This record gives sequence, C-alpha cells and structure tokens, in this order.
Amino acid sequence: MKLIQSRDNPLFKHLRALVEDARYRREQAASLLDGDHLLRAALDAGIAPRRVVLGARAQTQELVTALLERLPPSCELLELSDALLRQLSPVETPSGVLAEIALPVPAAVSFAGATGDILLLEGVQDAGNLGTLLRTAAAAGIQQVFLSAQCAQAWSPKVLRAGMGAHFVLQIHEHVALDELLAQWPGEILATALDPRAENLFAIDLRPPVAWMFGSEGRGLSAGVLACATRLAQIPMASGTESLNVAAAAAICLFEQRRQRSQ
Amino acid sequence: MKLIQSRDNPLFKHLRALVEDARYRREQAASLLDGDHLLRAALDAGIAPRRVVLGARAQTQELVTALLERLPPSCELLELSDALLRQLSPVETPSGVLAEIALPVPAAVSFAGATGDILLLEGVQDAGNLGTLLRTAAAAGIQQVFLSAQCAQAWSPKVLRAGMGAHFVLQIHEHVALDELLAQWPGEILATALDPRAENLFAIDLRPPVAWMFGSEGRGLSAGVLACATRLAQIPMASGTESLNVAAAAAICLFEQRRQRSQ
Repeated sequence: MKLIQSRDNPLFKHLRALVEDARYRREQAASLLDGDHLLRAALDAGIAPRRVVLGARAQTQELVTALLERLPPSCELLELSDALLRQLSPVETPSGVLAEIALPVPAAVSFAGATGDILLLEGVQDAGNLGTLLRTAAAAGIQQVFLSAQCAQAWSPKVLRAGMGAHFVLQIHEHVALDELLAQWPGEILATALDPRAENLFAIDLRPPVAWMFGSEGRGLSAGVLACATRLAQIPMASGTESLNVAAAAAICLFEQRRQRSQ
Repeated sequence: MKLIQSRDNPLFKHLRALVEDARYRREQAASLLDGDHLLRAALDAGIAPRRVVLGARAQTQELVTALLERLPPSCELLELSDALLRQLSPVETPSGVLAEIALPVPAAVSFAGATGDILLLEGVQDAGNLGTLLRTAAAAGIQQVFLSAQCAQAWSPKVLRAGMGAHFVLQIHEHVALDELLAQWPGEILATALDPRAENLFAIDLRPPVAWMFGSEGRGLSAGVLACATRLAQIPMASGTESLNVAAAAAICLFEQRRQRSQ
C-alpha cells in the first residue's frame, strides 16, 4: 500500500481539492466519502470506489478490515499519515477511512406512467439542510430528486455526510430548470406556503403521485416556480410561530403522505 | 452613540467572548443575537436587550431603524466598524445588528395538572439540529424543553440562529437529569426506536399529553433514559433505509400528534 506523508504529494493535493473545491469536483466528476458508514452504503448500492484512503489507526479496526474485503481489485488503496488525514476530514474525530467515487450519472428522466413522487428543491444552499432533505426523501420512498442550479452541490462531502447514504438510493438530478421539468409532470405539484389560498396539509388527499417543491430557507420558492404549483399546502402551526426549517417541513409533508397511503 | 474600532476594546472583547466561549456565556448568563429577525422575536417576547450593536451600514436600514425605536432607554447602543462586526458574525452576509441579552431563567417545573407536551433531548450536540428541534417544538405548540448536560448550549449564537426565535416562546431547561424529571411526569413517555417492540407511530393515540424523547445523532438515547419510555414508536420508512435526522424524526412525531388532535 502506498503511503503518503507529504502535503506536496500530487495525489494528496487531488484529494484535498475534492474536499474543498466544488468546481474541481465537477470537473473530475468525483467526490470523497468520509467514514465507514458512507463507504458501506456506497458498496451496498453497487458503487465501486476508485480509491480508498486509510489513516494508520483505521487499518486495525475490524469494521474497516471487513469493508476492505469488499473492494474491487481496480480500487487503489492508499495510506495517509494522521496529520494529512485530518486535513481532509472536517469532523473532530476522523473515522480514518475516505473513499473517492465517481459521481453517478442519473438515468434520463421520463414521467410516462409515473407512479412515484418526486422532490424538487430550489436554492437550498445549506449543506446540512440539503443532506437532511435527501435523507428524508429516501426514507419516505422517493426515488428522484431535482435540484435547481442555485442549490448547494449535492455530492459535496458535507452534503454526503448529512445524507447518511441517501445519495446512493436516489437519482439526483442537478442544475435542473424546474419549471421546464414540471411542464412534463402529469400529477399534482405541491408547495408549502403561507398563503390564504393554501389548504391544510392534513386535509389534502396525498395518495396520488405528487411533485413536492421546497425553496430556500430565506426566500422560499421563486415566483416562477411557485406558479407551477397545482395546490398550496400549509402545515398548521401553533399561534405565535410562523415557520419551520425547510427539512423539517419536508419531513412532515412526505411522512404525512406515507401515513395516508398506509391507511 | 459610542463607536468601537479597536479589537483591543474591552467591550469588543466581551462581545467576542459571548460569541465564541460557551463558559463565558454561562458565567455572564448572557448571549448575543445576530440579525434583525432574532432581535424582533426577542422584543416581541418582552425580552429587553442589554446592548445593541450596529454596523455602519445597518443604521440606514429602515428595518433596523424601526427596531431601534422599540428598545428600552436602559439599552446601550454601540457602533462597530464593519471589520470588527464581521468578526462577531459567522454568516457570510452579516445583518449588521447584534443584541446582547440576559439569558431568561425558566420558571420552576411543575407537572401538576399538566396538559401540555414536553420535549426531552439527550446529547444533541449539533447546533443546527438543536436549533431546528427547538423551532419545530415551538411550531408544534410545545412550551417546555429539557436538555441533558451533554447537549450543545441552547443559547449559543448558532443554536439561536437555527432556532429562528423559538427560544423566546419556549421554556428551555438545561443540564437536566432526564430520568429524575421523568419520575414526576404523569403521562406517556415516548421515544422513537428501531426495536421489535416499537409500535407504528401512526397507530398510536397521541392525543393525551406526551413526554417526547430524542437522543444524539450517533448513539440515540442512553439505556437509562430509554428505560423510562412507556412506549416505543417507529416511523415507518421505505425499505433499504434505516434512519432519519433527529430533527426530521421529531418533526414527523410532533406534527402527527398535532394532526391527530385536529381531527
């Protein structure tokens, strides 16, 4: 196994750029997973890492040893000094395992005979929120997610961490013109809104397929995208309160839909 | 209005310590609000800031001018150079308004004749998650929240920001021995768990008062606190997925309860 100890090593520079530089990730069509949980989720989904990077400590961990046995022969194995590893891992207690993956290319979109729901996100820039939204969508059984160009990069290490493996069970489409996409969508298009026309979420029949739309924390959906909604929903809140975190609002909507379908 | 331009100014050092140092905040029983939204929420809740700090740009904003008219005469008004202001504000586009408040002291706890629900959090250390949990609790109509000693500090600037004003409509009790507290609670005590004994959340009658418990992201609830639960609930997730962000899980539970009560 190749050992890297210098920060001038080109491979280390490459890995650091994958962590820090969104444009570099896009150019390389690659990203870096941090931790054994994400690596296992990727392997479970049939994603073969290009490289796996280990810290000195990680190699003695049983968990990691078991994962290494699942790597394809084409996967390059590297060892990094702990000092260098810490530079690649933003968490306080680095797991000691990193994996470089090629970004999956989502299949072409067709809504012909669509039976599943879809999730559309416009301008969600907070990595934690975006990752949590993806995690919630996956747990709710959604398979396709569409992000406007103003969203944070779905495959950044921070979003991957918050997604906890959701990325690998979703089809994630980035840089999507949401209004053009919605022109093809045959079902209801729902947005939450503080609007007198909005109906109580719990009174809406959510059993048919829905395109769910959520906007940025500060501004919500743009007027152009909001105009695509076929219905507006409001989540009934306690008096004196006016808003929810976008990922909390989505969790309430998507699992109310799951509840209705299970009745 | 007093203008501060030097980072050696004792008052600036005091403000910076309020932002950065959890122990200092506790010693001073104070914290720093960032932005006009939080300042308005505090004023709406009858909380009088000790000091308001303005950047040069903020003073020409109508929004801010309107807020300044609501400050009590005892409130000290300071101006900070933009360079210093940026050091106090972790967001990229500082709003230019900061307010120092004394931490509210929650009223003594009594569950005699309790009709409201309570939220208990154990070991929630991520500031964004904790703030979102508080925001969701307030929106769901919960009034009392109890945090174990291992939680992040509820009144840190980051948690305040994610809470979006929820702090001012809640009674937040910190450093609580959750098991001792629960010994006094007369109602159901619910935790979500991946456990064969757990009942489907949507099949549980949630209309009577509930003490809701949520644990840390990684480890969940400790065995001692989990043992206090009178029922376990599981949120039905899509196959192949196993978990939700703690704040998303809480949003689903608390709003399912709201839904049941509104039927």
